[in-house]
Amino acid sequence: MAPRRKKVYEGKAKILYEGPEPGTLVQYFKDDATAFNAQKKATIEGKGVLNNRLSEFFMTGLTNIGVPNHFIRRLNMREQLIRQVEVVPLEVIVRNFAAGSIAKRLGLEEGTPLPRPIVEYSYKNDELGDPLVPEEYIIAFGWASQQDLDDIVSLALRVNDFLSGIFFGVGIKLVDFKIEIGRVWDGDFMRLIVADEISPDSCRLWDVKTGQKLDKDVFRRDLGSLTDAYTEVAKRLGVLPANTGTVKPTLIN
Amino acid sequence: MAPRRKKVYEGKAKILYEGPEPGTLVQYFKDDATAFNAQKKATIEGKGVLNNRLSEFFMTGLTNIGVPNHFIRRLNMREQLIRQVEVVPLEVIVRNFAAGSIAKRLGLEEGTPLPRPIVEYSYKNDELGDPLVPEEYIIAFGWASQQDLDDIVSLALRVNDFLSGIFFGVGIKLVDFKIEIGRVWDGDFMRLIVADEISPDSCRLWDVKTGQKLDKDVFRRDLGSLTDAYTEVAKRLGVLPANTGTVKPTLIN
Repeated sequence: MAPRRKKVYEGKAKILYEGPEPGTLVQYFKDDATAFNAQKKATIEGKGVLNNRLSEFFMTGLTNIGVPNHFIRRLNMREQLIRQVEVVPLEVIVRNFAAGSIAKRLGLEEGTPLPRPIVEYSYKNDELGDPLVPEEYIIAFGWASQQDLDDIVSLALRVNDFLSGIFFGVGIKLVDFKIEIGRVWDGDFMRLIVADEISPDSCRLWDVKTGQKLDKDVFRRDLGSLTDAYTEVAKRLGVLPANTGTVKPTLIN
Repeated sequence: MAPRRKKVYEGKAKILYEGPEPGTLVQYFKDDATAFNAQKKATIEGKGVLNNRLSEFFMTGLTNIGVPNHFIRRLNMREQLIRQVEVVPLEVIVRNFAAGSIAKRLGLEEGTPLPRPIVEYSYKNDELGDPLVPEEYIIAFGWASQQDLDDIVSLALRVNDFLSGIFFGVGIKLVDFKIEIGRVWDGDFMRLIVADEISPDSCRLWDVKTGQKLDKDVFRRDLGSLTDAYTEVAKRLGVLPANTGTVKPTLIN
């Protein structure tokens, strides 16, 4: 892509550029890793390449089963073409086992199975640290309607079933994940679709047998090489050839 | 299991015995393969062992995501303990791509993507050749109520999302599958649960890259070794060690 194109938004792990056609954007995956609302930062060589590939893989799978999402096609090692959406200012979190904030908030041991999948919302606001919000707040402040939330729960639970299947098939437990939701209009008809990314940055993934973490907690908690963890996920899913030990920076454009 | 236990039912590919406790059965997987309503028959060495393992794998995964089913635990190479159910006399078929009877009935090329997953029903009756039936027949003849069918569609679509994920993660396309549904009672409360089996006998599975069939069509259409096809599915899912070329009959008890 030409370097003179217009930057629309820069986040912690991705940059959005204007796309080649109206209603499209180019999503660029950076190697930057952040945690604890960006209080911890690092550059992880190859992370952007892996997440670009993995998000392509998961979004393509969702398209196959009819879960609408923003992915159009991968452009190169670090970029994908996506549909421009109006982002609903929520992080939609689906939890199958207790980990992270719910474990802390409720005093649960990490790994405790939850009585059923739990869908919760954080209000996307860096200054506030993306706080957990009840539905009551979301509706009262107009971030989404009750109908939107019903649709979002349906989408989130379908994504959970599908991703749970993908990971179950390769010996990985899907502990929890986060998605974002965007609005698109087909004429006057508004639809909610899955946006942002699905990758080990946005999921908690534990090896079924060893319990080894294969997600961003490796970085958050200093548990080893994040690239190795993400490469393991990609290899199990056949997204990288099994004989590719690591992602070479020379492959990056 | 002692050989004197009581046989409850013998079907084409499985035998049901009385279980050790009330409300349980032992499901034994035979090596017999049949097709075209048993007009074509053969014994496929090792098929029962593979299907016992694979059905355990899929049913366990469904339990993990909260889809109720009859599986309790595997007992040995060919047997599993299951919950006794009152079988709803329907084959519930979910189709993602046209193949088999729908391709013939509607004149569609095999592999044509369907506009959305289609759930259809056959009336389980060997003499009639398990005919396709509309919901109207099912409700009129009292095989299931409208509420039952709504619940069955929900279950079937969740199973479809989950299995689609499992197979997508290992390079296999889930073309269609069949499940059976059973009724169980928790006190006065009736629930519908997934019963029978989930295996390459009951799914159409195509390799994503080559289109190679990895299911019972290999037998129906004389396309090679059925054991090799099922072993390939089991290996990709880690259900068999990758270095196990075939299932040795010596392992069978």
